[in-house]
Amino acid sequence: MPVRPETGAFLIAPDPARPGLTRAVTGVDHTGAEQRVSVVEERPLTIFLNSREIVTAMTIGDYPEYLAVGFLRNQRMLSDRDVITGVDYDDDLQVVVVRTATETDHEAKLTRKTRTSGCAVGTVFGDMMEGLEGLTLPPAQVRTSDLYALAHRINTTPSLYLDAGAIHGTVLCEGPRPLVYMEDVGRHNAVDKIAGWMASEAVGGGDKILYTTGRLTSEMVIKTALMGIPVLASRSGFTAWGVEIAQQVGLTLIGRMRGQRFLCLSGAERLVRDADPASVPPEDARMRRKGASA
Amino acid sequence: MPVRPETGAFLIAPDPARPGLTRAVTGVDHTGAEQRVSVVEERPLTIFLNSREIVTAMTIGDYPEYLAVGFLRNQRMLSDRDVITGVDYDDDLQVVVVRTATETDHEAKLTRKTRTSGCAVGTVFGDMMEGLEGLTLPPAQVRTSDLYALAHRINTTPSLYLDAGAIHGTVLCEGPRPLVYMEDVGRHNAVDKIAGWMASEAVGGGDKILYTTGRLTSEMVIKTALMGIPVLASRSGFTAWGVEIAQQVGLTLIGRMRGQRFLCLSGAERLVRDADPASVPPEDARMRRKGASA
Repeated sequence: MPVRPETGAFLIAPDPARPGLTRAVTGVDHTGAEQRVSVVEERPLTIFLNSREIVTAMTIGDYPEYLAVGFLRNQRMLSDRDVITGVDYDDDLQVVVVRTATETDHEAKLTRKTRTSGCAVGTVFGDMMEGLEGLTLPPAQVRTSDLYALAHRINTTPSLYLDAGAIHGTVLCEGPRPLVYMEDVGRHNAVDKIAGWMASEAVGGGDKILYTTGRLTSEMVIKTALMGIPVLASRSGFTAWGVEIAQQVGLTLIGRMRGQRFLCLSGAERLVRDADPASVPPEDARMRRKGASA
Repeated sequence: MPVRPETGAFLIAPDPARPGLTRAVTGVDHTGAEQRVSVVEERPLTIFLNSREIVTAMTIGDYPEYLAVGFLRNQRMLSDRDVITGVDYDDDLQVVVVRTATETDHEAKLTRKTRTSGCAVGTVFGDMMEGLEGLTLPPAQVRTSDLYALAHRINTTPSLYLDAGAIHGTVLCEGPRPLVYMEDVGRHNAVDKIAGWMASEAVGGGDKILYTTGRLTSEMVIKTALMGIPVLASRSGFTAWGVEIAQQVGLTLIGRMRGQRFLCLSGAERLVRDADPASVPPEDARMRRKGASA
């Protein structure tokens, strides 16, 4: 899909005002005063691959088709060879069915299970690493000026994260431009929705940067690598295995991005330091306050 | 198990210095300077119930026996009726086997799957709500002075959260006393480890408060209710379904605890406002900085 280089516009951006993503809830605060607050929704979405029920994801509920396709691809239950003939979503049943031209050999891979907020892949451990052997990510360069521009742009874009918190955001970026910004109660859903969009629009990952508000765990690194994206950046921290896998597959892993600060624990050779950190303004106070909603 | 009322000492507290919980990793920071940082470990732990492999959890690796027992109980695969005859952990194989006097009827409930960091229950959606029907939590009172004392005590206790970040903490509390403070890369593991400790020590939840650094999602609320704990507090935010379930089962749900601030979206009738919020000191800056590691 052609990305419009002439504009920095998001192709998909959060729509905090969209009905159904949040619910107004009344409670009391520390002073005893009644407070009416906006809280993010969390709904079950059951994903079918052809006639086989695969998983029930707990999701905020937007972009169910992208979530289903992206989940199945990141589970390696759908490959480039599989031809998707249809993706049908039923809002009442909260079911989405992905249909392929021929039965894939993966329907039997999983049995029925729930994937709840913040939850990750339900497949066997062996499968988690599947497809990483021999995977090589392109030697793309990453300009620190782009990283700073992306962080500032994303942190100042209206989002449910800023409005309601308790949600994760993941953004597919190209150079200094954020392209697709997905949010979900499960950070893995946000990544899967991006994978689904990439598959649906035939967008490759080789020249992209993936930015997330969530932690850089083994699974986030594996999903990013399987999406063919050579750079994963986050405002959050690392796990040791996430770093180890990134180093194995040659993925550039950047964490703890706050204002001018960041830490690169893998693939630093891709960094092109074309920005003076001292010139980067501090983060907006709202971001710092929102921090622990993750 | 008798809790020593004469002391406020933790029965179990984090041990950030314990070997094997973190790994020193070398990277470069925003200035290009080499940095050696401490990163939390993330390891697979495969849990067996008798001869049946149930799940592979991604965990920091401490208290595998508590994690296994607590996971199985929170999955309702182990009940009070099941007699545990042994819990065997093999460090090399990263396997823990929970043995019961008689085969339970739950071994067949799950097939092999992985539970990764931040990941939640792998059972079917229907099962998630199982056991909540007819559940009534005790009408315990919650003193706001206790909530403030707990938050201050927990936030100033040395932990991996403060040292390395990218980890969740969950604390079983009684009145103003934090009793058991568990940390894990998966916040659900931290809760399960507490459930395992409660089961192993025959400690009831009716007079307890559960404090977590993580979000108040449907699953956190369900686990807390199944543990018989009437109060769940967090420094993070809410999801709408989490609030809805808490209201259904009569659980007191308190979120966004920062300094003197908090928000109660369910069960406010349990609150006893015996503390002047104005007397509560602001949070330590380290906590605010650590916020987004979740």
